[in-house]
Amino acid sequence: MGNVLVLYDSGTGNTAAMARYVAEGARAIPGIAVRLRRVEKATAADVLWCDGLAVGSPTNFGTISWKMKRFWDEKLLDRWLKVDGKIACAFSSSGGWGGGAELTCLALLILLMNFGFLVFGVTDYAGKLKTAHYGTVVAREPRAKDDVAACKLLGKRLAEWVAVYADGRKGEHPVGKREQA
Amino acid sequence: MGNVLVLYDSGTGNTAAMARYVAEGARAIPGIAVRLRRVEKATAADVLWCDGLAVGSPTNFGTISWKMKRFWDEKLLDRWLKVDGKIACAFSSSGGWGGGAELTCLALLILLMNFGFLVFGVTDYAGKLKTAHYGTVVAREPRAKDDVAACKLLGKRLAEWVAVYADGRKGEHPVGKREQA
Amino acid sequence: MGNVLVLYDSGTGNTAAMARYVAEGARAIPGIAVRLRRVEKATAADVLWCDGLAVGSPTNFGTISWKMKRFWDEKLLDRWLKVDGKIACAFSSSGGWGGGAELTCLALLILLMNFGFLVFGVTDYAGKLKTAHYGTVVAREPRAKDDVAACKLLGKRLAEWVAVYADGRKGEHPVGKREQA
Amino acid sequence: MGNVLVLYDSGTGNTAAMARYVAEGARAIPGIAVRLRRVEKATAADVLWCDGLAVGSPTNFGTISWKMKRFWDEKLLDRWLKVDGKIACAFSSSGGWGGGAELTCLALLILLMNFGFLVFGVTDYAGKLKTAHYGTVVAREPRAKDDVAACKLLGKRLAEWVAVYADGRKGEHPVGKREQA
Repeated sequence: MGNVLVLYDSGTGNTAAMARYVAEGARAIPGIAVRLRRVEKATAADVLWCDGLAVGSPTNFGTISWKMKRFWDEKLLDRWLKVDGKIACAFSSSGGWGGGAELTCLALLILLMNFGFLVFGVTDYAGKLKTAHYGTVVAREPRAKDDVAACKLLGKRLAEWVAVYADGRKGEHPVGKREQA
Repeated sequence: MGNVLVLYDSGTGNTAAMARYVAEGARAIPGIAVRLRRVEKATAADVLWCDGLAVGSPTNFGTISWKMKRFWDEKLLDRWLKVDGKIACAFSSSGGWGGGAELTCLALLILLMNFGFLVFGVTDYAGKLKTAHYGTVVAREPRAKDDVAACKLLGKRLAEWVAVYADGRKGEHPVGKREQA
Repeated sequence: MGNVLVLYDSGTGNTAAMARYVAEGARAIPGIAVRLRRVEKATAADVLWCDGLAVGSPTNFGTISWKMKRFWDEKLLDRWLKVDGKIACAFSSSGGWGGGAELTCLALLILLMNFGFLVFGVTDYAGKLKTAHYGTVVAREPRAKDDVAACKLLGKRLAEWVAVYADGRKGEHPVGKREQA
Repeated sequence: MGNVLVLYDSGTGNTAAMARYVAEGARAIPGIAVRLRRVEKATAADVLWCDGLAVGSPTNFGTISWKMKRFWDEKLLDRWLKVDGKIACAFSSSGGWGGGAELTCLALLILLMNFGFLVFGVTDYAGKLKTAHYGTVVAREPRAKDDVAACKLLGKRLAEWVAVYADGRKGEHPVGKREQA
């Protein structure tokens, strides 16, 4: 069964809170093992271990925090060409709506594509005015009900794709589930 | 005195509502002439006329609407290399937070940079959890007070840069105004 | 066995030439059916048919051509939420290096993620100074040997991911092939 | 008269070489003072000093190097809201064409916009197949004639915008110069 890594950096604790909800969402799919790692304690082995990866960074001046960037620049440097094909997504907390959280997710997705990962966003809505089309974005703390739901939805979708593609469990495909719902 | 064009496409009327607030914000700076144009009625002459330009598009599948793209592909094609150096910014309404409005602003800014425009975002906050660092973004209708404020702030900042850079009115520089406030 | 669609728009014929090489690359993987469609003749049924999708657009002012955007805005509008999970990539020809072909690929990948597709780039190099980390990019015509190789490599990688993930043929995984090589 | 800062990080020396050419290009405009700073030796005072700023980073996994990011995250943190309105641009060297240099420039421009800078690209071509629409991009070393020209062109354009907008020297406007040429 598939493995999911939730890897994050956090300055204020907001992205850390998102990470816990993302991990909780991933655990909703039976059989998926979930590992939650703060960037300072994460290793290349964590990335090699996983089939699916959610990476979170605070939005710092519109893009990835330098600590999260350093992790990939230094710790993953010699694993490049050895991790292609894993499935990945992104999440970020910014200081406010319009503050660059979507752009930070985009930067994370670009970084992940560079490593050969297959990256995705979530089509579904997590609330009336809330989705996660390029990863989950939150302004400051994920406190509102739909912010929490958007974090869980991202983790769940990641686990679903891992179940479908790494484990071959086609019954976990979101389109099939929607049609049955 | 400087001229500001607010150019927009709108499907549901939400981006159109934003455009009116952006125009209102630009009028807050004395001496600035403001023109509001829906993309179907806009011409290359409108773009040539202006010193500062705010472009709005609905977020359609994460990027610019085809109608707004067609305007630049067709109507501005032979004005390329003749409009460098104007000052420009972007705004967009999406179906929900996390739905791609920041990415649509980014695509608009990329398009505008291609034409040689100097593009910018707003550093200031328009409310406790609301800014416009890469242009103004709204989920659906700009109804909440801080959504309206973020639209007006974008227009005002555009007009300020036009006043400072096109008109040479250094007293309109936002940093100087902040220090005096 | 999996199906690959190569969908493209082309103004000068350069992106069309890329599309033919991408299709040729996809055919290099046994068992993959390949369909090549110019945007004017493509339908939603083509997208529904495929497991893997390569989308090409000329770089027009730094982003997707309005014709390619219109295809998704109009023809795929009511298929949204029905196509999640397909695997996709991008390619583009621009007027010159530094002209925005990477940014056009990025815009295409954003559009594809909005539809729930899993998008990827190619880690491998197609020549000494040529790769396709976010899709294949070419300045004008794909004439140089490494430009042609980068197109074929993209198509081949797409077909490999389809073989691995849609067909369950793990022997086509690029990392495994590299280790055996 | 205006001041131009060329700020760069470099791993292999390639982006450093670009930086020297960008600085040389900026010096081509009379009256412009040019400062060249490697990121380790740069300070917030350098950024405050300048009217125009060119920032270069190696393309490391498709985006800004962690060292360049750290400079802004740490050294400029308390200058935010004090530097709005400066004019800025980007440059990057990647391992190969298609390797993410345009995306790295984009990430730099996003970062610079966050600080309130007005960012731009160059419309002109620096060679038959070479431009700098979103900043100057090079594969590895800037050795080819048009790579060197694209670096100089970026610096020159930056200095021109500083002359026009910070100094009020309208005769340096590129559109006017083109018409006279």
